[in-house]
Amino acid sequence: MKLYYSKGTCSLAVRIALHEIGIKAQYEAVNLKIKQTESGKDFLKINAKGAVPALELDNGEILTENAVIQQYLADLHHATTVLPEVGNFKRYRVLEWLNYVSTEIHKGCGALFHPKIPQTVKDEVFIPMLKAKFDYLDAHFANSPFLLDHFTLPDGYLFVILSWLPKFNIDINDWKNVSRYITDVKNRSSVKAALQEEQLL
Amino acid sequence: MKLYYSKGTCSLAVRIALHEIGIKAQYEAVNLKIKQTESGKDFLKINAKGAVPALELDNGEILTENAVIQQYLADLHHATTVLPEVGNFKRYRVLEWLNYVSTEIHKGCGALFHPKIPQTVKDEVFIPMLKAKFDYLDAHFANSPFLLDHFTLPDGYLFVILSWLPKFNIDINDWKNVSRYITDVKNRSSVKAALQEEQLL
Repeated sequence: MKLYYSKGTCSLAVRIALHEIGIKAQYEAVNLKIKQTESGKDFLKINAKGAVPALELDNGEILTENAVIQQYLADLHHATTVLPEVGNFKRYRVLEWLNYVSTEIHKGCGALFHPKIPQTVKDEVFIPMLKAKFDYLDAHFANSPFLLDHFTLPDGYLFVILSWLPKFNIDINDWKNVSRYITDVKNRSSVKAALQEEQLL
Repeated sequence: MKLYYSKGTCSLAVRIALHEIGIKAQYEAVNLKIKQTESGKDFLKINAKGAVPALELDNGEILTENAVIQQYLADLHHATTVLPEVGNFKRYRVLEWLNYVSTEIHKGCGALFHPKIPQTVKDEVFIPMLKAKFDYLDAHFANSPFLLDHFTLPDGYLFVILSWLPKFNIDINDWKNVSRYITDVKNRSSVKAALQEEQLL
């Protein structure tokens, strides 16, 4: 299989999952501005939505949507440590966090990247909304080492999104438990390997 | 089990799923402004995130996150028509749309509800982004009766979000295939029953 990715973007979460599960994959970079892959392919013909990650399976099918690619990989490889099987209620606790990270944390950053949104609106609306979510996470991490009691799929995803915060002049040290969590996740070998591959260490 | 809901909000998607799967449940309304349930409970003690839907299981556990509650219900009842089982690749096609509806369509509407975002920013940034997604959906529905070849979980969810468009002065008739799709979904007995229960017909 091949992962279409872009350095440091949310596709890094899938790369972390691949390492965590222990799956060898090929990787092809995508220039998201011109929607072209490093081998010169038109990325819009691979994923009409124009976004990474996109996973090309060995049969040629393309799977998109970050949280779904992660589930697919875990289910395929019976990686029940990072995503318990159907029938185990803990599966839905993992998915609950995965969905929260996707819809609230990841999507909560979306507006901050948008050049047409005035900085005042970012400062008065979007940054406070995001900070309220960090308060929620900080309270959670006061009593939990990871999103759950051990590393699961949404942890890699959350780690990646949190790595963007310096771009928005948000200092994560203001949330001491989130800060401790980031250090712990960054020290995992799967995360180190993924960061190294994207030359982010 | 009991669904905490608020009339016409995204929790309606779970009510549709409950009908579609054929699960009897209790329902308790939540006043989201004051975070209180109709029986007088503090909703923040039920779901600290303050959002509906929240599903209370018979053992007292609370499950949150719309897309995850839907998966849980389908898996629990082996409702493989609306969500194929693990091992069937079509499961991930259903989840792909479910995630797209959550992150792009549902979250794409979020800013439009926000009173502190100036209307000019809504008109120049958020409405065009949403309309581009309706273009994408419209092209898809030109060749597909539902999001997939039959009704699955994300269809009920998408239908609910699309029902909000008149609030934003968006006329869905501008997208003829999306408009046809809405009519088809609205005619399903599960959808009719859910709308009737929330007095939305």
